[in-house]
Amino acid sequence: MKIQIGVIGASTCAAGLQVKAEEVGYEIAKRGAFLICGGLGGVMEASAKGAKRACGTTVGIVPGCSRQSANPYIDIAILSNMGHARNAIIAQSCDALVAVGGEYGTLSEIAFSLKMGKTVVTLESKWEIEGTIKASSPKEAVELALNAASSL
Amino acid sequence: MKIQIGVIGASTCAAGLQVKAEEVGYEIAKRGAFLICGGLGGVMEASAKGAKRACGTTVGIVPGCSRQSANPYIDIAILSNMGHARNAIIAQSCDALVAVGGEYGTLSEIAFSLKMGKTVVTLESKWEIEGTIKASSPKEAVELALNAASSL
Amino acid sequence: MKIQIGVIGASTCAAGLQVKAEEVGYEIAKRGAFLICGGLGGVMEASAKGAKRACGTTVGIVPGCSRQSANPYIDIAILSNMGHARNAIIAQSCDALVAVGGEYGTLSEIAFSLKMGKTVVTLESKWEIEGTIKASSPKEAVELALNAASSL
Amino acid sequence: MKIQIGVIGASTCAAGLQVKAEEVGYEIAKRGAFLICGGLGGVMEASAKGAKRACGTTVGIVPGCSRQSANPYIDIAILSNMGHARNAIIAQSCDALVAVGGEYGTLSEIAFSLKMGKTVVTLESKWEIEGTIKASSPKEAVELALNAASSL
Repeated sequence: MKIQIGVIGASTCAAGLQVKAEEVGYEIAKRGAFLICGGLGGVMEASAKGAKRACGTTVGIVPGCSRQSANPYIDIAILSNMGHARNAIIAQSCDALVAVGGEYGTLSEIAFSLKMGKTVVTLESKWEIEGTIKASSPKEAVELALNAASSL
Repeated sequence: MKIQIGVIGASTCAAGLQVKAEEVGYEIAKRGAFLICGGLGGVMEASAKGAKRACGTTVGIVPGCSRQSANPYIDIAILSNMGHARNAIIAQSCDALVAVGGEYGTLSEIAFSLKMGKTVVTLESKWEIEGTIKASSPKEAVELALNAASSL
Repeated sequence: MKIQIGVIGASTCAAGLQVKAEEVGYEIAKRGAFLICGGLGGVMEASAKGAKRACGTTVGIVPGCSRQSANPYIDIAILSNMGHARNAIIAQSCDALVAVGGEYGTLSEIAFSLKMGKTVVTLESKWEIEGTIKASSPKEAVELALNAASSL
Repeated sequence: MKIQIGVIGASTCAAGLQVKAEEVGYEIAKRGAFLICGGLGGVMEASAKGAKRACGTTVGIVPGCSRQSANPYIDIAILSNMGHARNAIIAQSCDALVAVGGEYGTLSEIAFSLKMGKTVVTLESKWEIEGTIKASSPKEAVELALNAASSL
């Protein structure tokens, strides 16, 4: 079974953060893991774009009920129709997660993931949540996440 | 339609926090609002106990599928069978929320509530989340929550 | 803990069915049980109206995220924001259920309830689903549901 | 965006039904669609096995919170931790569905799918639900489902 790594972050974000999210997605796919995200824009779209550049497979668990709401880099769209509660499914389905920046939605995903005992690596987080692991680069973030996932 | 106030907090907590949660629940019921919580122990049970002391009506949205999992002060048990994702339903269903202490689960509820634009009043929170409002007593916490709910 | 009886049925229905749904709700409240329904119109609204006539307490687990979507006879609105998936929470939360008429949504609730081992009493159902119990009147339907719930 | 076809059916089933489910999965993958199922045994496992035989990609939306609960032919496991309510996500996420045999769980999925306006093709169903389309062979079932999905 392939490792499933989540990338979480806001649906709109600064260009610098998008570049980092894309690198995160690229690294995840290059190393052979599936990328799971919330399927929308911003960090989610950038990471999926990066994963496709490395020919990976991307899964978007979207809050709504339309495949059109998924960004164009999503291969498989899971239409939860559950709104924000889908964040719990994202957290649950990933072996480890990388948070890139992030707003309240991301915070809920970090909280869920930690509650479920998952490793959460953060890149440029504005939250200081005990239990998360800070990374200084996309590459390091993915390495930390994959190491945690491999040891499950 | 009566106001619905949520009380969120950990399922195990120190005795001092339980006393405050019970006061929060008592005040909510005394002022005629419904109390919604996660239905389990700790802060949830103490707040429901306080609400019953003031003859209020208590709703517990539990994570599992058994009424026996609800604490004895819950009148109406909603069996979500959704695990932590039920936190989103708690946040969504309340007009305003009071967080008493809290761990990761509470953090996810705070994040959801803020994302949904709800007022979250905190009592003895260890998190410093922008957008929440600090209260210094249970009475003040309920007043702030009810004021916010009334102005919706 | 009070018994929780579900009333399920379509959000629009013929006047004759509404009369029966209202009687079902009235009987549930008269006998001291809580009424749980989907919170919208048609059978749901009629049953809640009946329950309020007998001074009962009504719970509406609505598919959306707005209290305004609940019908005026709902005391406590649970805003699932989960669309049709909320039907599983309705089934899970009830000790027994009465289906009044019903379309596809009701069929999903009947299926869930039976899967969960709950008693489902039907009134004027167009479906012939093994495992359900037919009633010939609202009063009989509620009696059958309460008997099943009492023996849990 | 590739078509997403759901295969729904019971987690235990007769050998004859498994053969048909496997053919359904094989045909779905051969024609280039993603297969989505509930990820467990019986019809779900047989269909995923068939899809892997044709080198397809399989998605299992499981009710629990463990990847080990997914059958060995699932590539991507979505851990809903929502129990039966995950049936709504399966129905929502598919462009069209094929029901192979089926018990109450399948019935809930058929009901949800029809409520959402999706095409449901049945193979050896014991239910007679208006709105479903009967197929006489796995190949025909997949053809009917793909035709419906293509015309969306």
